[in-house]
Amino acid sequence: MTFLDVTMISSARGGLFSGVFSRGGAAPEVSDAAWLAAMLDVEAALATAQAKMGLVPREAASAVREACRPEHFDLAGLGSAAVATGNPVIPMVAALRGRVEPGLRRFVHHGATSQDINDTASMLVAARALAPLTADLSACAGACARLAAEYRDTVMAGRTFLQHAVPITFGLKAAGWLSALDQGLSGLMELRLPVQYGGAAGTLAVLGGRGHEVLPHFAAELDLAEPVLPWHTDRTPVTRLACALGTVAGTLGKIATDVKLLSQTEVAEAAEPSAPGRGGSSAMPHKRNPVGALSVLACVQRVPGLVSSTLGGMTSHEHERATGPWHAEWETLSDLLRLTGSAAAWLREALEGLTVDSARMRANLDATRGLLMAEHVVVTLGGTPQARTLVDAACARAADEGATLREVLLADPRVNLTAAEVDAALDPAAHLGSARAFVDRALHAHTHTHPRPL
Amino acid sequence: MTFLDVTMISSARGGLFSGVFSRGGAAPEVSDAAWLAAMLDVEAALATAQAKMGLVPREAASAVREACRPEHFDLAGLGSAAVATGNPVIPMVAALRGRVEPGLRRFVHHGATSQDINDTASMLVAARALAPLTADLSACAGACARLAAEYRDTVMAGRTFLQHAVPITFGLKAAGWLSALDQGLSGLMELRLPVQYGGAAGTLAVLGGRGHEVLPHFAAELDLAEPVLPWHTDRTPVTRLACALGTVAGTLGKIATDVKLLSQTEVAEAAEPSAPGRGGSSAMPHKRNPVGALSVLACVQRVPGLVSSTLGGMTSHEHERATGPWHAEWETLSDLLRLTGSAAAWLREALEGLTVDSARMRANLDATRGLLMAEHVVVTLGGTPQARTLVDAACARAADEGATLREVLLADPRVNLTAAEVDAALDPAAHLGSARAFVDRALHAHTHTHPRPL
Amino acid sequence: MTFLDVTMISSARGGLFSGVFSRGGAAPEVSDAAWLAAMLDVEAALATAQAKMGLVPREAASAVREACRPEHFDLAGLGSAAVATGNPVIPMVAALRGRVEPGLRRFVHHGATSQDINDTASMLVAARALAPLTADLSACAGACARLAAEYRDTVMAGRTFLQHAVPITFGLKAAGWLSALDQGLSGLMELRLPVQYGGAAGTLAVLGGRGHEVLPHFAAELDLAEPVLPWHTDRTPVTRLACALGTVAGTLGKIATDVKLLSQTEVAEAAEPSAPGRGGSSAMPHKRNPVGALSVLACVQRVPGLVSSTLGGMTSHEHERATGPWHAEWETLSDLLRLTGSAAAWLREALEGLTVDSARMRANLDATRGLLMAEHVVVTLGGTPQARTLVDAACARAADEGATLREVLLADPRVNLTAAEVDAALDPAAHLGSARAFVDRALHAHTHTHPRPL
Amino acid sequence: MTFLDVTMISSARGGLFSGVFSRGGAAPEVSDAAWLAAMLDVEAALATAQAKMGLVPREAASAVREACRPEHFDLAGLGSAAVATGNPVIPMVAALRGRVEPGLRRFVHHGATSQDINDTASMLVAARALAPLTADLSACAGACARLAAEYRDTVMAGRTFLQHAVPITFGLKAAGWLSALDQGLSGLMELRLPVQYGGAAGTLAVLGGRGHEVLPHFAAELDLAEPVLPWHTDRTPVTRLACALGTVAGTLGKIATDVKLLSQTEVAEAAEPSAPGRGGSSAMPHKRNPVGALSVLACVQRVPGLVSSTLGGMTSHEHERATGPWHAEWETLSDLLRLTGSAAAWLREALEGLTVDSARMRANLDATRGLLMAEHVVVTLGGTPQARTLVDAACARAADEGATLREVLLADPRVNLTAAEVDAALDPAAHLGSARAFVDRALHAHTHTHPRPL
Repeated sequence: MTFLDVTMISSARGGLFSGVFSRGGAAPEVSDAAWLAAMLDVEAALATAQAKMGLVPREAASAVREACRPEHFDLAGLGSAAVATGNPVIPMVAALRGRVEPGLRRFVHHGATSQDINDTASMLVAARALAPLTADLSACAGACARLAAEYRDTVMAGRTFLQHAVPITFGLKAAGWLSALDQGLSGLMELRLPVQYGGAAGTLAVLGGRGHEVLPHFAAELDLAEPVLPWHTDRTPVTRLACALGTVAGTLGKIATDVKLLSQTEVAEAAEPSAPGRGGSSAMPHKRNPVGALSVLACVQRVPGLVSSTLGGMTSHEHERATGPWHAEWETLSDLLRLTGSAAAWLREALEGLTVDSARMRANLDATRGLLMAEHVVVTLGGTPQARTLVDAACARAADEGATLREVLLADPRVNLTAAEVDAALDPAAHLGSARAFVDRALHAHTHTHPRPL
Repeated sequence: MTFLDVTMISSARGGLFSGVFSRGGAAPEVSDAAWLAAMLDVEAALATAQAKMGLVPREAASAVREACRPEHFDLAGLGSAAVATGNPVIPMVAALRGRVEPGLRRFVHHGATSQDINDTASMLVAARALAPLTADLSACAGACARLAAEYRDTVMAGRTFLQHAVPITFGLKAAGWLSALDQGLSGLMELRLPVQYGGAAGTLAVLGGRGHEVLPHFAAELDLAEPVLPWHTDRTPVTRLACALGTVAGTLGKIATDVKLLSQTEVAEAAEPSAPGRGGSSAMPHKRNPVGALSVLACVQRVPGLVSSTLGGMTSHEHERATGPWHAEWETLSDLLRLTGSAAAWLREALEGLTVDSARMRANLDATRGLLMAEHVVVTLGGTPQARTLVDAACARAADEGATLREVLLADPRVNLTAAEVDAALDPAAHLGSARAFVDRALHAHTHTHPRPL
Repeated sequence: MTFLDVTMISSARGGLFSGVFSRGGAAPEVSDAAWLAAMLDVEAALATAQAKMGLVPREAASAVREACRPEHFDLAGLGSAAVATGNPVIPMVAALRGRVEPGLRRFVHHGATSQDINDTASMLVAARALAPLTADLSACAGACARLAAEYRDTVMAGRTFLQHAVPITFGLKAAGWLSALDQGLSGLMELRLPVQYGGAAGTLAVLGGRGHEVLPHFAAELDLAEPVLPWHTDRTPVTRLACALGTVAGTLGKIATDVKLLSQTEVAEAAEPSAPGRGGSSAMPHKRNPVGALSVLACVQRVPGLVSSTLGGMTSHEHERATGPWHAEWETLSDLLRLTGSAAAWLREALEGLTVDSARMRANLDATRGLLMAEHVVVTLGGTPQARTLVDAACARAADEGATLREVLLADPRVNLTAAEVDAALDPAAHLGSARAFVDRALHAHTHTHPRPL
Repeated sequence: MTFLDVTMISSARGGLFSGVFSRGGAAPEVSDAAWLAAMLDVEAALATAQAKMGLVPREAASAVREACRPEHFDLAGLGSAAVATGNPVIPMVAALRGRVEPGLRRFVHHGATSQDINDTASMLVAARALAPLTADLSACAGACARLAAEYRDTVMAGRTFLQHAVPITFGLKAAGWLSALDQGLSGLMELRLPVQYGGAAGTLAVLGGRGHEVLPHFAAELDLAEPVLPWHTDRTPVTRLACALGTVAGTLGKIATDVKLLSQTEVAEAAEPSAPGRGGSSAMPHKRNPVGALSVLACVQRVPGLVSSTLGGMTSHEHERATGPWHAEWETLSDLLRLTGSAAAWLREALEGLTVDSARMRANLDATRGLLMAEHVVVTLGGTPQARTLVDAACARAADEGATLREVLLADPRVNLTAAEVDAALDPAAHLGSARAFVDRALHAHTHTHPRPL
């Protein structure tokens, strides 16, 4: 059977809402089928590592590897059987032993406890889900780098507290997104995802003192890290992963917020890519909803609570095995990877096809009739207190009369500037400070220290 | 039919981990299939209500009701189609219209916006999931009431900061669980789950001024409440539900914590029901793990973060429709209902079959060799400062010498009590204060104000 | 010293950041001084209640009441002394006994445990902080009611996903705020804040069986509710309070979000009240920052995490007294009351002085050149599929050519409407559906079921 | 005035509850006075850096440094003045300018925006609070290393789900604590805390293109890191800090949980250090409450919610400056540093004075009458299926009859072992696997890669 049709399982999983929340390549990697496959890979790797050390016969390892094929297992049945013990590993190991000839059964799951398999599988699932997730993140960063370069000189209003402040460039805004994404990627790349192997209470007792020697071989088989100790009740690997995802999700959300705000009807400086039906509304033909930003924001809204759940659980990992919080990590980690991955996939599409309206950016700068250049006029006039007083009065007058600052300045005999000088003073492009330099810094950092996806 | 094989969908959903997290009757009610069924029920109810008012032809309502059968719809296909707009309602309405004769299609989804259908469906899903959830909660309360009555006079150590404090009864402990459960049930019963109907921006514009009149009829069709206004961006109904579930989950967790602690090897005053394989360990035949408490704690660990996610989203419900946080509620609400429901089902089993070891409770009281009766000895000696000083010294001596307080008191010539009087002073059953009265109060409140499950 | 200068303490508490986070009347009610005063009030009320029952001599109660004056106590000293036991009640009771004549000292704190005092004080602190908090909320609701009435007919763009959708009125937007605020107020009003009295382990053992009779008298003294049982480890009263505040904070945040968005430079439909220096920027004279909305959003950002902290703690309230999570509630509850209170005070100011620009609202409606009336044009043309096709084409043409929908419709020979009929079809005020009815419903509900502040 | 008496301010801050929540050296470093001092240090460093580049006159920098003395400023007054703008920096800069001669005032706060000062100060406050915090963490790790070495061979029950599982050593348990603490310390050490300097909208416009050159000098002055870009709305530095603290707090909580559980009356394998009054109860002379574990757990209970608050805020940092979530970080970060710091200080005391009862650990191993050695007996009997069946039966019989496993085994003629061999098979010390090797690994990692405190 095609039990392992991951796509099917994944869409069954997300189902009705998977369009928003299970986009991209991470979702299938955290499906139940992917978990089962990872758990079986872990059993196979353990037997293989032990065979290499001579702890179990080579034919036992071969038999285990042969038996560890997901299509042999009834996922739903294992899930139901888990009711008895709270863990699907126990019935899975029983089924696995049933597929190995009797004389070799004792070498299945040798020296291991359920949590060894489950924890190592969780790290394997994470590693596999991080591959497409970081690829999408890297593509987001690439799109930002292109936007930063292309719109390096495109002036627009800088906005603080959603009010026009002073001019910036769209390149600088994109550079800010880029820098945050690169930091988020680095955070994921720095993670060390360790295998777990400690046996019933972290001593690997049944291996008679050689258990810890298995660790490097086991880790090598799965391309995971070797821990100093079993970490059954030290959940640092889990919370570090959760936190790194949490920061990435926050950055995805920040960019989506900017896209959402730039896409407002009244602002209209950027728009998500259009396609037939995308972002449309059956009732309102004029609408082009920012469905990408919306979906990013929907996904990441759920993340901080999930991170806090893993952090909150750490405290309750009593003694050598927790009564509850360990289990609570399974769905939580899956959700964190799926939601952050879906957000990255959505944002990638939005950024790669982003429509930028430079003319509208320039036009919107005039919304305050030149007032956002007031600071620069003061500088042009010498930066003295008298200049400031003069410009403040001009601004007040412009505001009162609904006039432009240009009109007021030209009408004021105390302003000792030609019309061309006034225009220069009011030119947003002349008041950009280090905007270009910052774009270059972000692009340089991206090029030279840019973390590669997994 | 059987697209609507809810069990299958549900187990596909929870799959490998559903044994722990999707127990009980709430899980199938929040499955994708259940959501789809609810959304169709909402469309049917809307048409029916409008037909009763004469806003749409009766044959249109009949046609809509006939078309709104889940087996006609391709759930996974709707989920995929939702990618274009971020919402499965739009493709579902298109498919629904396709099943109605052309002349009546304009009466499908009349005057409604996607969020009307989705929000009303979320309340319907909640109402349907709350039925088994509150039944399990009520059964938990019933089990606690029986324990409170049966163990009304069973003395045990009261423990504060996990140290023996003064005697209590197990009946009082169970009464405390009962009282908390009854409050949690009341919190769920008090909820008013309203329909949603506002149209594109909350004005029901296409109904030309009669739209608000639909509300009571629409609510009556679905047995939901009528809101004062459309609540597209006022998420009070959602957060009240989430918070009520959060408090219930906290109470389930508290009881599970007590069961877990009472089940410790060194305490052994209570044990979960045993069954072949239940709570067992293949490697350690002596173990009887508190798998029910474990599962409750695993489920509820995830709840506070989910509640905070709904609360945090409220703020971002901009203007007339939110860009993201509304969507974020769908999976969050489902998880909250599923996890709290699963916890209730697990605790019900644990409490209904709880084994209580009264003898061990009595024996454990002696762990401090009578010291926890010191307060009562002071009272017996008159409650004077001199009595206190004398008893303090006796306690110190008992602690130093590893003697019992009884031995020390009998050996002290200043203690003017017979052996029988000393024994009476050291009898835990004589120092229970209002324990029995409190049990009666809890049982009385349970009987007289006990909220009935939905 | 003037130890009890609550204002000083409060501002010392909030200090540098209190301008934003400690506004309004709730902050001083959760100050350390207010907590100490509440704890002393609790001791006094307990003695008084017991004296009324004859459990302690009347002169003892008088002496306790006389001694329970905050100015007699060294708050910082009690805080330091709390290091030994983790609780300031123990040193406070010692100091209190020291202020009562020796013969009456045994009647101080009679039968009580530290948690009795602390928990009851927390409810008293909450009740006292809720008074100004609900007054500010009620004032917010009042301001919304006035806005709803005044701007009942003021058309503006309804916005979904921050895109223009269909017309609404500003009165309807304000009515939506009103309805949410009224529900939040109701949630606070429905709270029952109970006294706590259980003694060492919830049995009130030293009162020999009469302890539970103290409860109604004790509750009456403090105008708090009588619980069924001691709730030392059933934290329902705490989480219900936290959750009700969480929902209110979410509503305050939603309104602030709308004010923030309406205040954007490009939207400019509303502005917060201006005052010299308020919302200003020294560098940018044109700016009028929405400092009220900003402060509301800053305050409420912290709330969901605090709520989740109280919910998460419930589970760990072991046996008869928790090892940690009880203590964790003290600062958390104070923060919840202070931050929600501060947000309410900020929003009250913003709403009571809100400047609404009806002309700008009307002008912004034209931003899509009539497209947001497309739906209404279809209705005017008979609502047939042909009409829809025709209007869709007209919209597409208007969008392509940058023309108004009016121009396109008038130029299309298939459109069988006079110029006056086209204008009527494009009139936003003609497409408001039940907007006015909904305003009336919200005002009616506010008037007739409006919860009064505490 | 003694304005800068940090201790006083700090204790006023924490006040009544500071004994639990504001212990250790971090609390005073996050006091309002410490924030003010940091903000002034930032202004001084900025002027100094700019003077070194020749951007401002050297005498201006000297004047600014001279003026930036906290004792010149009225903290409460600044806090009140912040109401107008939502930020204490604006009134602080005004006051600072007032202390500089008029001709140099324009060089105060040159090119900076309020957020530059506040954000850089937040990193400085964090760096200063992390110094004592990491010192306490390092001391905790040192105590664990000593416990791991000292109790390397002390057998005790390994406990999973709070049930006896197989033997471990107390040294291994302490090694697990050590390894988690070392990872947490590493997480804090890896943090790069950057300065912030971007001006009104991140372009440093008033510096005319040289602004970015200030960054390395500014960072060097404060011993902070240089960012690639201004991070006004990229909050990665804040959330990374919060997350690293969150993981540390979780580890502190896990250790406290173990101490709490080991200290239970029925377990009694460890106890916190005793001192007169410490952990005592006035009513119950036998009690020795684990006040350190309690306080750790109280502190860390609040942390996950605070972390989620910073993560949740990231998304809403719109455009070039956030409307609310930036401000929300101030108290949140302070609380995170204070609470984690207090927890570290409490745990340090508890661990450095921990009383370990090896005899009781050994005695508790017998609680299951030898059953937890069943696995080892199977191994001794050859590890065959027959051996397993035989031992299973023996265990069942021991459980049924209340006999020891030793008695049952010796009485069973099929068990072909001498009494000495049975005793060897039942010796916990013979079934410790890699426990000692793991202790060595943790100690080696601690010694060789042990992160030094800040």
